[in-house]
Amino acid sequence: MYLRSLDINVDCGESFGNWTMGQDEELLPLVTTANVACGFHASDPCTMAQTVKLAQRHSVAIGAHPGLPDLMGFGRRRMDLDPSEAYNYVVYQVGALQKFVEVEGETLHHVKPHGAMYWLINEREEIARAVLRAIADCCPARMFYWPAPIRDHVREFAAEAGLRTIGEFYVDLMYDDEGKLILERKKGELDIDAATERARTFVQQGWMPSVNGKQLRFDAESLCVHGDGPNGIDITESVRRSLGGEGVEIAAIN
Amino acid sequence: MYLRSLDINVDCGESFGNWTMGQDEELLPLVTTANVACGFHASDPCTMAQTVKLAQRHSVAIGAHPGLPDLMGFGRRRMDLDPSEAYNYVVYQVGALQKFVEVEGETLHHVKPHGAMYWLINEREEIARAVLRAIADCCPARMFYWPAPIRDHVREFAAEAGLRTIGEFYVDLMYDDEGKLILERKKGELDIDAATERARTFVQQGWMPSVNGKQLRFDAESLCVHGDGPNGIDITESVRRSLGGEGVEIAAIN
Amino acid sequence: MYLRSLDINVDCGESFGNWTMGQDEELLPLVTTANVACGFHASDPCTMAQTVKLAQRHSVAIGAHPGLPDLMGFGRRRMDLDPSEAYNYVVYQVGALQKFVEVEGETLHHVKPHGAMYWLINEREEIARAVLRAIADCCPARMFYWPAPIRDHVREFAAEAGLRTIGEFYVDLMYDDEGKLILERKKGELDIDAATERARTFVQQGWMPSVNGKQLRFDAESLCVHGDGPNGIDITESVRRSLGGEGVEIAAIN
Amino acid sequence: MYLRSLDINVDCGESFGNWTMGQDEELLPLVTTANVACGFHASDPCTMAQTVKLAQRHSVAIGAHPGLPDLMGFGRRRMDLDPSEAYNYVVYQVGALQKFVEVEGETLHHVKPHGAMYWLINEREEIARAVLRAIADCCPARMFYWPAPIRDHVREFAAEAGLRTIGEFYVDLMYDDEGKLILERKKGELDIDAATERARTFVQQGWMPSVNGKQLRFDAESLCVHGDGPNGIDITESVRRSLGGEGVEIAAIN
Repeated sequence: MYLRSLDINVDCGESFGNWTMGQDEELLPLVTTANVACGFHASDPCTMAQTVKLAQRHSVAIGAHPGLPDLMGFGRRRMDLDPSEAYNYVVYQVGALQKFVEVEGETLHHVKPHGAMYWLINEREEIARAVLRAIADCCPARMFYWPAPIRDHVREFAAEAGLRTIGEFYVDLMYDDEGKLILERKKGELDIDAATERARTFVQQGWMPSVNGKQLRFDAESLCVHGDGPNGIDITESVRRSLGGEGVEIAAIN
Repeated sequence: MYLRSLDINVDCGESFGNWTMGQDEELLPLVTTANVACGFHASDPCTMAQTVKLAQRHSVAIGAHPGLPDLMGFGRRRMDLDPSEAYNYVVYQVGALQKFVEVEGETLHHVKPHGAMYWLINEREEIARAVLRAIADCCPARMFYWPAPIRDHVREFAAEAGLRTIGEFYVDLMYDDEGKLILERKKGELDIDAATERARTFVQQGWMPSVNGKQLRFDAESLCVHGDGPNGIDITESVRRSLGGEGVEIAAIN
Repeated sequence: MYLRSLDINVDCGESFGNWTMGQDEELLPLVTTANVACGFHASDPCTMAQTVKLAQRHSVAIGAHPGLPDLMGFGRRRMDLDPSEAYNYVVYQVGALQKFVEVEGETLHHVKPHGAMYWLINEREEIARAVLRAIADCCPARMFYWPAPIRDHVREFAAEAGLRTIGEFYVDLMYDDEGKLILERKKGELDIDAATERARTFVQQGWMPSVNGKQLRFDAESLCVHGDGPNGIDITESVRRSLGGEGVEIAAIN
Repeated sequence: MYLRSLDINVDCGESFGNWTMGQDEELLPLVTTANVACGFHASDPCTMAQTVKLAQRHSVAIGAHPGLPDLMGFGRRRMDLDPSEAYNYVVYQVGALQKFVEVEGETLHHVKPHGAMYWLINEREEIARAVLRAIADCCPARMFYWPAPIRDHVREFAAEAGLRTIGEFYVDLMYDDEGKLILERKKGELDIDAATERARTFVQQGWMPSVNGKQLRFDAESLCVHGDGPNGIDITESVRRSLGGEGVEIAAIN
């Protein structure tokens, strides 16, 4: 067994004002860890407060999901930030979210960068260094979530900053033969059994099939599911049932 | 002597992006306490980081100055918030500012509501209760700054929430006979000697003359000076010199 | 017959960035006039462009629906604007929307103030005067939509500004005995036959029953339907079919 | 004489809410053409209205200066827009500004892209095509300002779109030997005589010295001066006096 215990995380709290997004009410009871948007790419103070309370009600570990200051583009457009901007944007957002967490008597579990902030970290070393240092300075648990396989410079700067890095794997997105996620803007209906099988393979044997069938081995401890896909709830339920039935503990990283 | 020790506070960190406001570089060395804007009515993460560092360099106690989400109106336009919005806007902003403070190894000293958030608290009891509870939930030091004389419902809800309330007095604004501040949008050049004399009267004897010469007695421990007036720096220097020369300690509330 | 021809209008273009709202694809084919949000309380340039194109495809007359600068509150929170701010906010938004309309070869049909801007106009005469003058200065067709029955000062300032005022009536909201709309935040499932009957009564006889059964007579030429209610599409289809079957022309005001 | 008539343009209307920027009151009386910010990177509806009125009072031709939606970064950070976003952002901003111009009885003179929108046009052909088409669709005068020397793809797409392109030259910034502007974030105090001499050389002989003394020949009809530099007013006055004294007409392009 590659993983005796499986963490399942989901991006949530992505509504904004009167606009709703995602299926937080349905998905949070099924996952173990929540990445809550912090008001720059999505969310607002009231949404954050509600999302934190909802996560708490379902005993879900709560992390911050900071993004770029671009509501209109949902934080998915690269912006030409300098490192000090990136650092300060993370401090601001994590601080805000952490306060909502503390007001409910909980502690902040981790930080996971969102969207184009993730891309900037992958592509620009000085942004990676700035953001990882910000996470280390901000998150008392010093835990950092990141899609696996993790690039060398990200792993290195995370270690330098004293962060524990939690790799994520996906079962509703495909990987190319180099292990890169194949993102499609509109997710198609995904076969639930196939997704479940992919999860089982990874948890039991520690590898994921690429889109061409190649065995990809990488370190990951958390499954990231999606609330904006067509059957994220069904996939999550199926994975829980299937792996839980085989004795895998479904629990947040601690 | 009414006050043996005088705290001097100033609103600061009110620049936004490329736009500068105030005279933080000049005023922070002269005051003992800073109220730092938190990004809703003014400021941005980089400005907050710089302002916190500047305050720290001059050993100034750092508080949060949360406002309404209205950059275009500088948080000076009343908005019809409901209490949960007001609560959550304070939590968000105080959390963000506190993180910048902690990253520099300092602790958050107090919270002071800004502009139209101040007016809403004075005018609507349910907003007052929500904001004061938010400050109590957010600020570990449970310290709350407020222009004196303080209205009954504000004093009562602050006590209920377990807050220590620090009254402020002004020497560059006039009071009417009921003790209400007479706000003028554009501050005229104020006579420095007159302002200094007003400060000395309050500190020594605990009263302030109204615009008609009436003696107004109210509780206050902190002098609030302004960085956007024409001679805020001169007034602050003069008050410090004059009162310091008479043996009044110039120091932050602790 | 009170009305030989019925205009049906709907608020639309209320999505924002990645967040969708309303049922524009389904409702625009059924109505004759569209009130398109302009980016202050909802919408963004891409949403505006798409909405204008969609309206054009269905030969729907296109009006501007300007609101308060408050995306987080969907323009539904009163803000303490001064008249020149209100004037300029309308000019800005109408100008922006009109350009999208012109780029598609259409002309701007009318202006209808949104949400809290509507309330401010009803409640503050100087705001009413400013906004109505802005609409007259901005909208070449000088047409202004407004929920009937219309208050005296609004009617008067609209006339002063040279505006043609189009009264609206609602069949999915109730009126009290004074003719005031009873707004509920969450619209309940409304009986389609009852709504259709209310429309028929108004179109044939020129009155609307109040919630207590009182006959309310007021001037109105346009039915406003909702895309965010549970059965706005069904009601609109039913009204069209029923009244169209009785020989009422369903057409935009011209 | 290379130019018999000289247009002098300046970026203006860059204040935002309570924050002021630039020296519009002093500079607009000295220039012939104004590029007014439109609310995305700077400005707001009230600033736009005031700036348009100020320009009108001094008989200055009024153009739109659209930018990226990034107030916090002053539109100076590249954002990864797609072409339809770029197109629609220009339509929105030009429409808004044009309405303020029309309300004052004037006509829109030209469009000039700002900051990072300018860089995106230079660097990405599909963005250049989208923005130039937007300007052609939006600006009835079909006039487009652009720093000379102009890159081939920009010149080509502008011609394709039916735009008249007005090249700009600078005398307070240096050019490298390839004719590229050397931008420095903080402009140093510039020698007024040297700047005036550079303007005279270009107007009389049609070339500009590079930083290494190379003669750079390029097409340009308008001098762009700056309101945020330390002596923009002095330079503008000196250029006007010197060239005016030699019989060069100082007038907007028409």
